[in-house]
Amino acid sequence: MRPIIPDYLAEALGDVEPDASGEPAAYIPELAAADPERLAAAFATVDGRVYGAGDVDVPFTIQSISKPFVYALALADRGFDPVLARVGVEPSGEAFNEISLESGSGRPLNPMINAGAITVHSLVGPERCAPADRVERVIRGLSAFAGRQLTVDRQVYASEMATAHRNLAIAHMLRSHDMLTEDARTVVEGYTEQCSVLVTTRDLALMAATLANRGVNPLSGETVVSETVVRQVLSVMFSCGMYDAAGDWATQVGIPAKSGVAGGLIGTLPGRIGIATFSPRLDRHGNSVRGVSLFERFSSDMGLHVMDVPSAGQAVVRSNHVLGSGTDALRVLELQGGIDFAGAERVVRAALETAPPEARVAVDLTRVHAIDDVARRMVLEVARRLTLDGQEVYLVDPETMLPDPDPGEGGRVTVVRTVEEAAPTPS
Amino acid sequence: MRPIIPDYLAEALGDVEPDASGEPAAYIPELAAADPERLAAAFATVDGRVYGAGDVDVPFTIQSISKPFVYALALADRGFDPVLARVGVEPSGEAFNEISLESGSGRPLNPMINAGAITVHSLVGPERCAPADRVERVIRGLSAFAGRQLTVDRQVYASEMATAHRNLAIAHMLRSHDMLTEDARTVVEGYTEQCSVLVTTRDLALMAATLANRGVNPLSGETVVSETVVRQVLSVMFSCGMYDAAGDWATQVGIPAKSGVAGGLIGTLPGRIGIATFSPRLDRHGNSVRGVSLFERFSSDMGLHVMDVPSAGQAVVRSNHVLGSGTDALRVLELQGGIDFAGAERVVRAALETAPPEARVAVDLTRVHAIDDVARRMVLEVARRLTLDGQEVYLVDPETMLPDPDPGEGGRVTVVRTVEEAAPTPS
Amino acid sequence: MRPIIPDYLAEALGDVEPDASGEPAAYIPELAAADPERLAAAFATVDGRVYGAGDVDVPFTIQSISKPFVYALALADRGFDPVLARVGVEPSGEAFNEISLESGSGRPLNPMINAGAITVHSLVGPERCAPADRVERVIRGLSAFAGRQLTVDRQVYASEMATAHRNLAIAHMLRSHDMLTEDARTVVEGYTEQCSVLVTTRDLALMAATLANRGVNPLSGETVVSETVVRQVLSVMFSCGMYDAAGDWATQVGIPAKSGVAGGLIGTLPGRIGIATFSPRLDRHGNSVRGVSLFERFSSDMGLHVMDVPSAGQAVVRSNHVLGSGTDALRVLELQGGIDFAGAERVVRAALETAPPEARVAVDLTRVHAIDDVARRMVLEVARRLTLDGQEVYLVDPETMLPDPDPGEGGRVTVVRTVEEAAPTPS
Amino acid sequence: MRPIIPDYLAEALGDVEPDASGEPAAYIPELAAADPERLAAAFATVDGRVYGAGDVDVPFTIQSISKPFVYALALADRGFDPVLARVGVEPSGEAFNEISLESGSGRPLNPMINAGAITVHSLVGPERCAPADRVERVIRGLSAFAGRQLTVDRQVYASEMATAHRNLAIAHMLRSHDMLTEDARTVVEGYTEQCSVLVTTRDLALMAATLANRGVNPLSGETVVSETVVRQVLSVMFSCGMYDAAGDWATQVGIPAKSGVAGGLIGTLPGRIGIATFSPRLDRHGNSVRGVSLFERFSSDMGLHVMDVPSAGQAVVRSNHVLGSGTDALRVLELQGGIDFAGAERVVRAALETAPPEARVAVDLTRVHAIDDVARRMVLEVARRLTLDGQEVYLVDPETMLPDPDPGEGGRVTVVRTVEEAAPTPS
Repeated sequence: MRPIIPDYLAEALGDVEPDASGEPAAYIPELAAADPERLAAAFATVDGRVYGAGDVDVPFTIQSISKPFVYALALADRGFDPVLARVGVEPSGEAFNEISLESGSGRPLNPMINAGAITVHSLVGPERCAPADRVERVIRGLSAFAGRQLTVDRQVYASEMATAHRNLAIAHMLRSHDMLTEDARTVVEGYTEQCSVLVTTRDLALMAATLANRGVNPLSGETVVSETVVRQVLSVMFSCGMYDAAGDWATQVGIPAKSGVAGGLIGTLPGRIGIATFSPRLDRHGNSVRGVSLFERFSSDMGLHVMDVPSAGQAVVRSNHVLGSGTDALRVLELQGGIDFAGAERVVRAALETAPPEARVAVDLTRVHAIDDVARRMVLEVARRLTLDGQEVYLVDPETMLPDPDPGEGGRVTVVRTVEEAAPTPS
Repeated sequence: MRPIIPDYLAEALGDVEPDASGEPAAYIPELAAADPERLAAAFATVDGRVYGAGDVDVPFTIQSISKPFVYALALADRGFDPVLARVGVEPSGEAFNEISLESGSGRPLNPMINAGAITVHSLVGPERCAPADRVERVIRGLSAFAGRQLTVDRQVYASEMATAHRNLAIAHMLRSHDMLTEDARTVVEGYTEQCSVLVTTRDLALMAATLANRGVNPLSGETVVSETVVRQVLSVMFSCGMYDAAGDWATQVGIPAKSGVAGGLIGTLPGRIGIATFSPRLDRHGNSVRGVSLFERFSSDMGLHVMDVPSAGQAVVRSNHVLGSGTDALRVLELQGGIDFAGAERVVRAALETAPPEARVAVDLTRVHAIDDVARRMVLEVARRLTLDGQEVYLVDPETMLPDPDPGEGGRVTVVRTVEEAAPTPS
Repeated sequence: MRPIIPDYLAEALGDVEPDASGEPAAYIPELAAADPERLAAAFATVDGRVYGAGDVDVPFTIQSISKPFVYALALADRGFDPVLARVGVEPSGEAFNEISLESGSGRPLNPMINAGAITVHSLVGPERCAPADRVERVIRGLSAFAGRQLTVDRQVYASEMATAHRNLAIAHMLRSHDMLTEDARTVVEGYTEQCSVLVTTRDLALMAATLANRGVNPLSGETVVSETVVRQVLSVMFSCGMYDAAGDWATQVGIPAKSGVAGGLIGTLPGRIGIATFSPRLDRHGNSVRGVSLFERFSSDMGLHVMDVPSAGQAVVRSNHVLGSGTDALRVLELQGGIDFAGAERVVRAALETAPPEARVAVDLTRVHAIDDVARRMVLEVARRLTLDGQEVYLVDPETMLPDPDPGEGGRVTVVRTVEEAAPTPS
Repeated sequence: MRPIIPDYLAEALGDVEPDASGEPAAYIPELAAADPERLAAAFATVDGRVYGAGDVDVPFTIQSISKPFVYALALADRGFDPVLARVGVEPSGEAFNEISLESGSGRPLNPMINAGAITVHSLVGPERCAPADRVERVIRGLSAFAGRQLTVDRQVYASEMATAHRNLAIAHMLRSHDMLTEDARTVVEGYTEQCSVLVTTRDLALMAATLANRGVNPLSGETVVSETVVRQVLSVMFSCGMYDAAGDWATQVGIPAKSGVAGGLIGTLPGRIGIATFSPRLDRHGNSVRGVSLFERFSSDMGLHVMDVPSAGQAVVRSNHVLGSGTDALRVLELQGGIDFAGAERVVRAALETAPPEARVAVDLTRVHAIDDVARRMVLEVARRLTLDGQEVYLVDPETMLPDPDPGEGGRVTVVRTVEEAAPTPS
């Protein structure tokens, strides 16, 4: 039987293939020489499955796609405050190579423009890290995101350094504002190595999936960065990742994303999937022409826009009924699905505000497959308040969705495995 | 029994109450005279339940919070293209009253700054709409979002018009670029009426919930705008709603939001909840000081950040087992929860790639409570391909999650209500 | 006999006539309808002689050429400080209709851009002047510069007001910064009347000559504004008069100048001449194409560049010789020409530093035709110091170049009409 | 006897001495260590006389005052077009170290800001000049302006290079726009050497006087640059020399000037004088506080403002009378002083338009001490036209003010040494 998702990807590639508009990045000789016909797309799931079509194993340089990942490394290595003190999080509405420093402080507006990314590079590793050690840390970190050892393309590196005038200008300007505290040229060299790391479309999909998977590489299981770092990185990607086309992207595609001048493009759906595409011809914003088309299609076909209202609201409270009667009567709240704040609100409403007159109440979690922290606390608070009102509370939790269910301050629950255990004995 | 959510809201208000920093908007005399101690917060669920604490029924003027809603009305009335031709979607990184027009065209950068909002106001209603009719349409539209008839505060309106110098400047500038095609002063008058509409915190929460509920007012059931319009509005709110603090907000709070100078602040979690707060003292960005604190708390307490990875990945495939044996054997894929693209990918994998040798396969949707369009198509495609491979496919769908299940092109499924109906007869 | 200067002007017009590049101002319908072939040039001397060629008596609207003159009126009516508090003197390097306000204060950068000129208009006449009175004062003032009663072209006025969107935008913005303290629209109406005043090329040459003549109209003899005001106006014209082409003009033409969108262009050489040209087609900076060519030619042909070193340094000290001998000997310093600071320095050097041993010294002013204030004081100081050193000083001053020659503090001079009167009697 | 001008200078220094406001340049360690109390002023005449007071022989680094002189050298070495193609002449209204490049081309706005000056440095000497040779050419050129061999302060040079981050940023940015075509760091090193040249206040006064003297050093007599170059340099100094205070300076002082961060300040009055002051404490624009005060005083005391109307117009036509009568009658036009275009216009008027009926006309230049080119041509044209009208023309020119007086095309003049030679013989 033919596979469904690769078929879909192949079809999508076929549709965009004829579009030969745009040009490969011209300002770096090595990139200008790239084969402009290369085309690939890959999806990586949060449990490490990769689907690909086209040139998914052709290596190219990561370029600006390294920015969100190295931002993540800097946040992890130094903490939020020192990094935020040097690099802001505001969209610049400008091209990638604009200087875009805050007037006065000279702080780069965000880590997705070169000024910010160069500063971020200097913040990876421990303070007073030797430049070579820092580059090694960067490459090691990028490799951890990808789940395999990555290497630097020395020819592209040399080619970029030979024409790195603007990045050198930016770095010296940052140095003049003390946003960089090291030798400007050395930092640009390190940053250029970072940009020259070779990746495949498959690697990029897995790197994106590592972000989607809360910072844990789905293949290696390594926690590369924390969940808090991931949230920061995705937020910044969403508003600043596509340069001066950020607003178009946010409205039309709606996926936190990042592009690179070698033609790569990644997107991350938190908790769901990492996506990568590769096609070297760029539009006037510096984003891959066919890559943008592919993402527009993926977003539309698969409902990936982060502002899409998820599918029809789940009925968290599957049923609310009474077993037995008289003083033995048991009110059963049968819950289902995944429960977050909004779901827990329904439980609260069902449990408390309909004011069950029965003295015994069972909350049945048998059909619940996930419950987040706030929902957990709300359900326990329901139990506590029912207890305080003199009611007896049962938690039907055969799969231990609520481990250690202590409602606190006078609350009390009895955990059972089936509703029957709590149900009134038919007399 | 005391209610949980109002308790939570009251506690949150109590925590921020002592913060007397910031100042009410000074540039509009009527607003400067507002009682700066007012404080309220409200949640509205997508099924219309409103929880509130504090001064939730005190009326104040909607001001800039009208912007996303009137943007929605313009998109609904004129369609996307004519509106996008006049107002962009790029973050400006500037204060609300900066002119921020694209150089050359004079197109305002986005609809959340005054230049954009004034232009948007002129795009509500049919072309060549009389100004008074347009204002009526705007008030009617805002009322539909709120679910009750709203009115204009004539005193605030007069006070604002008397000091509307900057908005008049902006409107004349827009007129000079033909972004406005009507009398500049008349448009500013209409826009100022729009800003002077009186709302309560409760109203704002319901308005936000209407966006969260795909444009359908949870109380009235009226479809105010389409789902596509809502997505556009929320995307723009996310990147442009908090002016020059947009990046801070996106990283720290992560909720599409909009503030008004009278002290209101709303946030929308698609599919989940509408939130509103009210406290007149503003920070230097023009956002309510205590409102921002409340949202930071709500986001953190309740996991509302849109870039948060949702709670532990749901095991969509609850079980994958075989009933019976021999040629009668039935492979059962028991699914559960809500199924989107990422979930359907697991189904595909379970169903196809483990290549069930059994000739009969049942996909059990009994525990599925939601399935989106792409997932529906993927499940049917699984069925189709299994059919083509010669397998017999059953869909166990007692609650008709998949109405009209036609896999197309040679596919075929038998819908049953229980697994037992498909199960091999125990011989 | 044919006249020399009109011949020169006619020849110059003939040379530029074929240049049909540029376009008449398009944004004001009445101006767009002007006959683009009109061409005129005129010189007016500081004693009121006007030379002209071409359409020197064709009326057109003064437009921005009113700016320096109305700036002069405001400085005269209100004094420097109140005007400088509202309008700066810094070049903006921007087009005439850019807003160009100082960030923060909202003060227009200079009075030659529209924002500055609109503010300046509001500063003419006494404080709290009624708008109609102010317009009358402006027209009366412009008429005084021209030496005849000027009038407003009502059709151009109406046409400009109908499309005055940008000026209205600017005025409302100024109002929002309290740079204007009156109704924005009323000020724009007044300013537009000012711009709609009808002048001929002859008028403009006389207006420029009034500036060249220290503010005194050469024909009427009326002192329109003071010399201090003229200096301020010419300085600002020099650096800001030609908008974003100011630097090109300053280097290539080097004459304080001002252009108008109706095609007029004036230049003023302090103490020497006023020049005006008229040709409606404008370059991309909004300056008359053929007007700019004519001024480049005039500047080059006639050595009018203010940074040109004047012709070969004048030998102020014509001779330094001794008449007679012995104790009667008279040292005679024969001066000539016009004497300013630099000239007086030569006198000082000749008189004192060569340390005349003769006891009697005559300073012969017979051939001096002008001496400025600092030079007068220096010559008298020479006399005083010679006196203090015990020398006897004669001033040969038949035409009373030094009226009331009191050297002060112990100095003393004897004024005579010829050297002979002081010369030693031949024994 | 005590000297007048040094007395004046000493008094001026005494008046500004108590002003201890401002701070020495802090960003270059060596400059921050300068003695802030140093104070000097010097005047240099166009014939090489230097008057000084205070620390006129204390050496300090020339810094930005080198900019106009090196601009002059580049214009001389490469011609106008190649230099203008790389550096504009428009005022930037910005601080000295702003990048201020034209958008698109990346051309620095003017040669007085660092971006322009760095580019200009690279344009000195022949194309493909070795960097060391270029620096030598720059030092040799500056020395020629000063009239003595200048040297580089190696300690200041090293100190500046150690903190030259911003200039390096600017140079790399210029390199990225191909405004620089050489290694960015090497050019900054050369430029920094240029800025580190040691000068005294006396040197600076002489350098300014070389500009005042049409490019000829008054002491050495060496023509350092041409008159055309000087005019360009002075024009640019006038509008761009004082950074963002250019407009204030142009209106209040009105002298082409240039300041340096070491505390130097120069001004040039074309044809008249060079002025220099030295005092290290700087205002917020980077200009010497006491230097600015001194120039304001000099300008006001001595009438040095270039927009001042020169002293009372000279009666160029001293007399217009007839000697003798009948056919022998001779009309004598006795001229005096220096004659430029405006003066010649009076001659034209007297000679032609009063239409002398006498058949013989003498133009008496005995009292004329200067006549510029256009005036010479106009006087000869008068002679030509009188000839054509049948009149006989005499030029009384004992000092050969009009060498080779050929009126051309049918004109004819008889040159005589005294009026008497042309006068009718008394019968």
